[in-house]
Amino acid sequence: MTAEISNGVSNIKIEENDNDDVVDPWNVVSKSETGVDYDKLIKRFGSSKVDQELLDRFEKVTGKPNHHLLRRGIFFSHRDMNSILNQYEAGKPFYLYTGRGPSSSSMHLGHLIPFIFCKWLQDVFDVPLVIQLTDDEKCLWRDIKLEEANKMAYENAKDIIAVGFDINKTFIFSNLDYIGQCPEFYRNMVRIQKCVTFNQVKGIFGFGDSDVIGKISFPSIQATPAVSTSFPFIFGGKKLPCLIPCAIDQDPYFRMTRDVAPRIGFQKPALLHSTFFPALQGAKTKMSASDPNSTIFLTDTPKQLKNKINKHAFSGGRATVEEHREFGGNCDVDISYQYLTFFLEDDEKLEQIRKDYTSGAILTGELKKILIDVLTPLVQQHQERRSKITDEILKQYMTPRKLNFSF
Amino acid sequence: MTAEISNGVSNIKIEENDNDDVVDPWNVVSKSETGVDYDKLIKRFGSSKVDQELLDRFEKVTGKPNHHLLRRGIFFSHRDMNSILNQYEAGKPFYLYTGRGPSSSSMHLGHLIPFIFCKWLQDVFDVPLVIQLTDDEKCLWRDIKLEEANKMAYENAKDIIAVGFDINKTFIFSNLDYIGQCPEFYRNMVRIQKCVTFNQVKGIFGFGDSDVIGKISFPSIQATPAVSTSFPFIFGGKKLPCLIPCAIDQDPYFRMTRDVAPRIGFQKPALLHSTFFPALQGAKTKMSASDPNSTIFLTDTPKQLKNKINKHAFSGGRATVEEHREFGGNCDVDISYQYLTFFLEDDEKLEQIRKDYTSGAILTGELKKILIDVLTPLVQQHQERRSKITDEILKQYMTPRKLNFSF
Repeated sequence: MTAEISNGVSNIKIEENDNDDVVDPWNVVSKSETGVDYDKLIKRFGSSKVDQELLDRFEKVTGKPNHHLLRRGIFFSHRDMNSILNQYEAGKPFYLYTGRGPSSSSMHLGHLIPFIFCKWLQDVFDVPLVIQLTDDEKCLWRDIKLEEANKMAYENAKDIIAVGFDINKTFIFSNLDYIGQCPEFYRNMVRIQKCVTFNQVKGIFGFGDSDVIGKISFPSIQATPAVSTSFPFIFGGKKLPCLIPCAIDQDPYFRMTRDVAPRIGFQKPALLHSTFFPALQGAKTKMSASDPNSTIFLTDTPKQLKNKINKHAFSGGRATVEEHREFGGNCDVDISYQYLTFFLEDDEKLEQIRKDYTSGAILTGELKKILIDVLTPLVQQHQERRSKITDEILKQYMTPRKLNFSF
Repeated sequence: MTAEISNGVSNIKIEENDNDDVVDPWNVVSKSETGVDYDKLIKRFGSSKVDQELLDRFEKVTGKPNHHLLRRGIFFSHRDMNSILNQYEAGKPFYLYTGRGPSSSSMHLGHLIPFIFCKWLQDVFDVPLVIQLTDDEKCLWRDIKLEEANKMAYENAKDIIAVGFDINKTFIFSNLDYIGQCPEFYRNMVRIQKCVTFNQVKGIFGFGDSDVIGKISFPSIQATPAVSTSFPFIFGGKKLPCLIPCAIDQDPYFRMTRDVAPRIGFQKPALLHSTFFPALQGAKTKMSASDPNSTIFLTDTPKQLKNKINKHAFSGGRATVEEHREFGGNCDVDISYQYLTFFLEDDEKLEQIRKDYTSGAILTGELKKILIDVLTPLVQQHQERRSKITDEILKQYMTPRKLNFSF
């Protein structure tokens, strides 16, 4: 981590070497078939590993078994998680903040991960959650109209609500709607914009002179929800610690936020970082809505889902059945197995599958069938829950309001 | 005017030579004792002179004598004023937009000029007026807290209201309050921010890499009120032409706005530019609240006002009474005479003073007394009107609401 000094402010710029994996909010490209080297990334980003000690403490503090996304190292990295656990142990409140950039009207499997985990955190800690939909960002980066991005935000919000968030504990907002409804939010944006120079966003995000000024100031908008006074109707103007669960490609925004927060009188937000949900074709890139063949959408039919997995899911199996039986498959690169680590909750079953595939006892086709049998009901149940999210329910989640907490 | 092309967008950057007067939103420094060379500025900025033909047309269209600030060439330059007059002649609506950067809790004489003129325009055309108080800008440029800048905005608003604006036709807003009350305003900000690159604001405003991102995106906020849909409660979402009366140092903001407006589906705003109100010490700079000796505040007592003029007002008189009687004074550099051109409405009287001072018939002390006799009641009456502006009245002007127009 390079701490450059400019205007008396550390630059929180991360050096990237030619042989490093590319990980930023717009690109994830690994050099390896097994995907991003996350241990190396922790060192490069200067975050901390979610180690056994932290996992043990999590269980001790919450009194609940850890979520499989946590115990399997999918949420693998953190910043200041111990201070959040201290806060909780001391009986003091904190809140969760996560977000989503609405990129298409249909979300995919990978998009569910931070939300599934957030729901678990919300349940075990009993804390409020704010979810930012960055429809403004999408207009600035893509050639789409505000109305279109705003509509995508609503569509995505229905998928998010379908994950099961408690309506009494959750506020979902679109920037294009909410910033114009809350003077405190805009005021915090200005406070943050006053602390960050062009040099810094150039260093952190790679912005250049030909970028539009909306892009250049956007990072302040993603930072603002980490400041609790941006939600006066929820927190009554109190300063509360914030925990942000997100995929690690969002870390640059929050490195910046952590740099600024103490300078405007707030605690640095804590973070829990997840790995990426790999593309069907392999772990070199993450699943992306812009490539339908690499992606299982939450709107896919059972048939589409089955076909995509059978046709596109990268296999760690051998070239022939004979070879596979003799030498076994490679779970480290097999996408079906990787997806099971995200979605199959039963640890014993997963371990058995790993052993059987590695030994060659089960073939790629069989492994794919197991995955299809796990994902099909999961996606169908999601679709069912989502179909029940009316515009009225959506509006309730997205209305600035008091939540069921007193601070 | 240099029209650079960057990202397919004209750069609207103005070249400045070493011997040019410095005129930008932050600095006004003339090379000459007679002040800025405004004819040269018109050429450099590419605006149009308010010539006799336009003055005649103004009177013909409004059916009223022109305001002295107009007929004396204080509002000396314009962009597209004829299209506004066409609009009015055709019986079609337009609106006025002006603004103020609240820099201290007391306004000075020079600050009154655009407002006095705006009130006249509002009266003769019977149009709505929106007034932006850029308290956010002040926080970004100066080392003051948001609360302080916001308070200054309210104090300044009381002075503005005291000019006599019709409460049924005028909306005054602080950015720190209003942007968080109107999603349409924020949406237009984003639309504008999408059209302007860092290269462009670098060229237009001289921003650099070490400037904070709040400054870099600020021009979009000053541009937004020129887009009528930013005030849905007034204009009901209609697209209306906008006329911006302002001092010419604000032109860079509106050159940028005129570049962007057609690209987001709006007409370019028209402009009426005023000269600067000179400092007491002379016309090389404009009156500035940051130098009390150069400034007559609207809060000054009659005694302070008298002393400041007698002590500091730069004289165009001769070194001795004898010389003055023989050769006469120079009205072109005499500050007392200059101030009379702004505030003495009677043309004949002003012309007589000019002749008498130029011939040496009246001395500097006598000229200063005339000015004191004009300004003292003016400032006192302002103070009286201002003292009647209660917080309740202030709140009414600053509440987003329907004005007394239907569109």
